[in-house]
Amino acid sequence: MPEATTPPPSSQPPAATGPVATTIEATPEQLASVRYDDDGLVVAIVQDDVTNAVLMQAYMNAETLAMSLAQGRTVFWSRSRQEIWRKGDTSGEHQYIRSAHFDCDGDALLFRVEQLGGGACHTGQYSCFHNPFGAADDTNTHLQDHA
Amino acid sequence: MPEATTPPPSSQPPAATGPVATTIEATPEQLASVRYDDDGLVVAIVQDDVTNAVLMQAYMNAETLAMSLAQGRTVFWSRSRQEIWRKGDTSGEHQYIRSAHFDCDGDALLFRVEQLGGGACHTGQYSCFHNPFGAADDTNTHLQDHA
Repeated sequence: MPEATTPPPSSQPPAATGPVATTIEATPEQLASVRYDDDGLVVAIVQDDVTNAVLMQAYMNAETLAMSLAQGRTVFWSRSRQEIWRKGDTSGEHQYIRSAHFDCDGDALLFRVEQLGGGACHTGQYSCFHNPFGAADDTNTHLQDHA
Repeated sequence: MPEATTPPPSSQPPAATGPVATTIEATPEQLASVRYDDDGLVVAIVQDDVTNAVLMQAYMNAETLAMSLAQGRTVFWSRSRQEIWRKGDTSGEHQYIRSAHFDCDGDALLFRVEQLGGGACHTGQYSCFHNPFGAADDTNTHLQDHA
């Protein structure tokens, strides 16, 4: 039996071990329950499915909600840039959707996600909600430590 | 030594064992970081401090944010009724604030609360986000079971 050797160089990439995107098959009735504001937008809240930390809040329109459910990744509408914004395409901080809910009156959405990279915030922080009112605390860091 | 007896009737109410409201002393700089929309409103997300479930999303204006921080309880602005809405005054489902954060660009707030009563939703559900896209699941019930 030969000794263990270094594997030969290969042109094959490593086997994919990253998260898997899962399409969510929403019904027409579910999609019709969403109420958009005068700008065609709905509040989207993103929560870490592992740590339960609330990571960020952004907006979706009907098109980016449909894209999010189909692709299994969060896609928002950027109000400042007035363009579609698929989370992580620039930063690598993709969000893979594990569940999606709409609220009782259909004007807010909640996505539980697998957050890739260091976190959700463009500042480099784990959560966008890292600024406390009152004395400083470590609530979100604390939640992250439990991951 | 006398036998144990039923305590005598008393006109005193039971000792208060409910949650304690705690004022959050926000600095002027923190309050100035909040960005209100054209209607003077900011997104407010409410998360259960015990179960970590996202309970509801509503709006605050500068007045009801100040009331919330001072009273240690969530106070919203009702867009439909155009009036101040202190959560739980009608339903008993008060929310005692355990921490409050604003996000990186100041246009969303996150309150971690002690939720009283059966939950946050006017439908009687624990969380307003009880409607899944796709097949039914028990995400929020599951979270509640961990309380």
